Amino acid sequence: MFDPVEKLKEFIRHKSISTDSSQREGMAGAQQFVADLLGSLGFAVDVVKTDLHPIIFARRGGDKSWPHVVIYGHYDVQPADPLNLWKTPAFEPTIVGNRIYGRGAADNKGPLLTNIAAVAQVLEANPNLPLRITFLVEGEEEMGSPSFPKFLERYADKLREADFVYLSDTALPNPDQVVLTCGLRGLALFDVQVTGAKGDLHSGLHGGVLRNPIQALAEILATLHTPDGRVNVPGFYDDVLDVHPWEREELKKLGTDEKAYAEFLGIDAFYTTPGFSPFESARFQPTLEFNGIGGGYQGEGTKTVIPSKAFAKLSCRLVPNQQPDKIKQLVRDTIRARTPQGIKLEFVDQHKGEPYVVVPPGRSNTPKDQSPVLARAFRATEAAVTEVWGRPPLYLREGGSVPIISQIKQVTGLDSVMLGLFLPEDNLHAPNEGFSLDVMKKGTETTRRMLLALAKG
Amino acid sequence: MFDPVEKLKEFIRHKSISTDSSQREGMAGAQQFVADLLGSLGFAVDVVKTDLHPIIFARRGGDKSWPHVVIYGHYDVQPADPLNLWKTPAFEPTIVGNRIYGRGAADNKGPLLTNIAAVAQVLEANPNLPLRITFLVEGEEEMGSPSFPKFLERYADKLREADFVYLSDTALPNPDQVVLTCGLRGLALFDVQVTGAKGDLHSGLHGGVLRNPIQALAEILATLHTPDGRVNVPGFYDDVLDVHPWEREELKKLGTDEKAYAEFLGIDAFYTTPGFSPFESARFQPTLEFNGIGGGYQGEGTKTVIPSKAFAKLSCRLVPNQQPDKIKQLVRDTIRARTPQGIKLEFVDQHKGEPYVVVPPGRSNTPKDQSPVLARAFRATEAAVTEVWGRPPLYLREGGSVPIISQIKQVTGLDSVMLGLFLPEDNLHAPNEGFSLDVMKKGTETTRRMLLALAKG
Repeated sequence: MFDPVEKLKEFIRHKSISTDSSQREGMAGAQQFVADLLGSLGFAVDVVKTDLHPIIFARRGGDKSWPHVVIYGHYDVQPADPLNLWKTPAFEPTIVGNRIYGRGAADNKGPLLTNIAAVAQVLEANPNLPLRITFLVEGEEEMGSPSFPKFLERYADKLREADFVYLSDTALPNPDQVVLTCGLRGLALFDVQVTGAKGDLHSGLHGGVLRNPIQALAEILATLHTPDGRVNVPGFYDDVLDVHPWEREELKKLGTDEKAYAEFLGIDAFYTTPGFSPFESARFQPTLEFNGIGGGYQGEGTKTVIPSKAFAKLSCRLVPNQQPDKIKQLVRDTIRARTPQGIKLEFVDQHKGEPYVVVPPGRSNTPKDQSPVLARAFRATEAAVTEVWGRPPLYLREGGSVPIISQIKQVTGLDSVMLGLFLPEDNLHAPNEGFSLDVMKKGTETTRRMLLALAKG
Repeated sequence: MFDPVEKLKEFIRHKSISTDSSQREGMAGAQQFVADLLGSLGFAVDVVKTDLHPIIFARRGGDKSWPHVVIYGHYDVQPADPLNLWKTPAFEPTIVGNRIYGRGAADNKGPLLTNIAAVAQVLEANPNLPLRITFLVEGEEEMGSPSFPKFLERYADKLREADFVYLSDTALPNPDQVVLTCGLRGLALFDVQVTGAKGDLHSGLHGGVLRNPIQALAEILATLHTPDGRVNVPGFYDDVLDVHPWEREELKKLGTDEKAYAEFLGIDAFYTTPGFSPFESARFQPTLEFNGIGGGYQGEGTKTVIPSKAFAKLSCRLVPNQQPDKIKQLVRDTIRARTPQGIKLEFVDQHKGEPYVVVPPGRSNTPKDQSPVLARAFRATEAAVTEVWGRPPLYLREGGSVPIISQIKQVTGLDSVMLGLFLPEDNLHAPNEGFSLDVMKKGTETTRRMLLALAKG
């Protein structure tokens, strides 16, 4: 059995920044690392070429009656800049106390290796374990998984042989309370561009004659929310699923402290959907956010120009059962209808992702046709978490998005069990990313027990 | 007598970009060029040091009973970038047909040299001309004349000995119709910065919880105009002087074509102060414009961030008798009152300039105490324009701003006679700046006649 911490160090040293084309060596190294490691555990490893970064598809077969789990992870990481804010070198893994620091430690190399270690342990002790396991490890997660849909089409039949997906790429709210994520928000993103005059104009010679596109853009954007915090787009909420009482109850158990949250954010007032606490709003309600805005002169001092153009970057977080394409259409139609005379309007489409929800067994809204193996997987995970962490997990939807989870569901019908392993202090996508070695140990033990229980039936 | 066109070429070759600290040689060269030229005409030249670029103060004295004109100009120019859009080298003056191209050709080297040439001609022919002439040529006009107020305080007494200011730094609407500019708009500029959370946030984890500062900024800016085109700030119009009927009549003589103007701008609808045509609105009404806006992610693709900050750059063009400080206060107070909860607000002050108006003699609103020499200067200029151009000038206010004109008025009481010499096609502040040699000839002759008539009384 390999030493998971030593292996994680080796994994982190590969600079696998998927968006940086100068890091091909790091990408190849990380991909080879995963393939070799799974090969050494007896998996049949396919390295599936894509237009960009290969996907590792590694199988441990067996009898078709055996349960079959797909374990998902990704071997790519975010860029590490700004490097000067790192206290230890970003790609030289460093242990301080009970934590390991380095880019990718938490997202997703540490959690992925946690699950690989669990598989290694369980197979070493039970070489004939009646469990089929497929690893699906991609290299484009940090760039929006552009090759994933094509891969999914090609491998749909093979994936349909499985019973569910298991992954650790979501959050652990604190070291004492595990969350099994049972919902993710979707995404609908596009840019709005407005144009006034055909070129920038001198604001002295022409000021007072035409509508400034920044003014037009501000006027449009200002209509898109109500003062009390709802998205002001007709039809926006039509398909929103009601939150079930058990979900609100579950969230209350997390012990939410609004004052501490406001302090963490540095704000003196929340602004949420009416009827939802800040914690509920982020997990249960859709949003329309402005991620960026630009136009005219942005440098120091002044330039008395009436700009020709201005733009904003919009993103909606969607909840079940909102459809990204329908929402994009609704928002665009609304913007078009609210654009003043004298202003030309253009949209630039960006990506999208479906929202996702899975209901654990035994809840009031659990589907009657829920797969028995999925139900067993939830129960096995819950039992393992309870034994290892001393407290049962909570089932909560998360505000973030992992678009491939809903893609897998749509194409193959497979649901996901998501064991959150990264803590708020793990600094994902930021300098000084780290991962708790204690969480790693407990996570490995949790997954080991889950796999064993699943195999035993 | 020197050759004005050859002298202009020499003047243009000096790269006198006042905002570019790497162009000190060009600034020194242009300043020396002006000082030497005026010295060669018999002027007593002071090169007045400032914190930045020297001001040339050159005098031809005489009997205190003689009329005394201050001729203003500036020897600095705008930066020339983007250089790749120039058809001829920016600092290598090139004559094509009847035009000379090069940075500064029209703003302000050509017009300044036009006036110097007129002075040279008139003094060569009349060495004992009973006229006092002072040249005031600065090197910071293109950066907002930061050293001018201090200079003005020091030289106020010397300037008060003069009767009026004469300059050519305004526009000629077409080669057949001279305009004597009798009003300029003022300026009041500042930035607005809004802050939400203390750092950028992940829009999945926190979206739906707090007000996005881009949203807050859009909501604030959207309140600052009415749908029909007025500035929606209480008190904004309180001090606006009514436009006199003769001013509207004068503007009509310019032969304004709204359709052609809309085509020139590339817009399909005007947006003006109600009751004012586009041409009237730009010259007679104040504005509140957004010169720039920025916040969050502005790159390609997407970044699902809730930004911490957003900003906008605001500028008001002011008309008599609006006061920049009062207007800044009104707009800031209005913005503060309209800022939603949970958003922090900051202002960054930028510069300002008073509006200016002078009424030519014989109008319904000419001040009863108008200086007789100023009235003679207007009449002499009008007669000279009529003789040289074959048509009398129009007296129009201009939408742009030349803040030093109102500063001189405030500190010394001197009014200005502004003979516009640059044409719409002269591309001020843009690539391929040029100046008409025909306008240069006619301008020289106009000023020569004006000076002679003024001296003769």
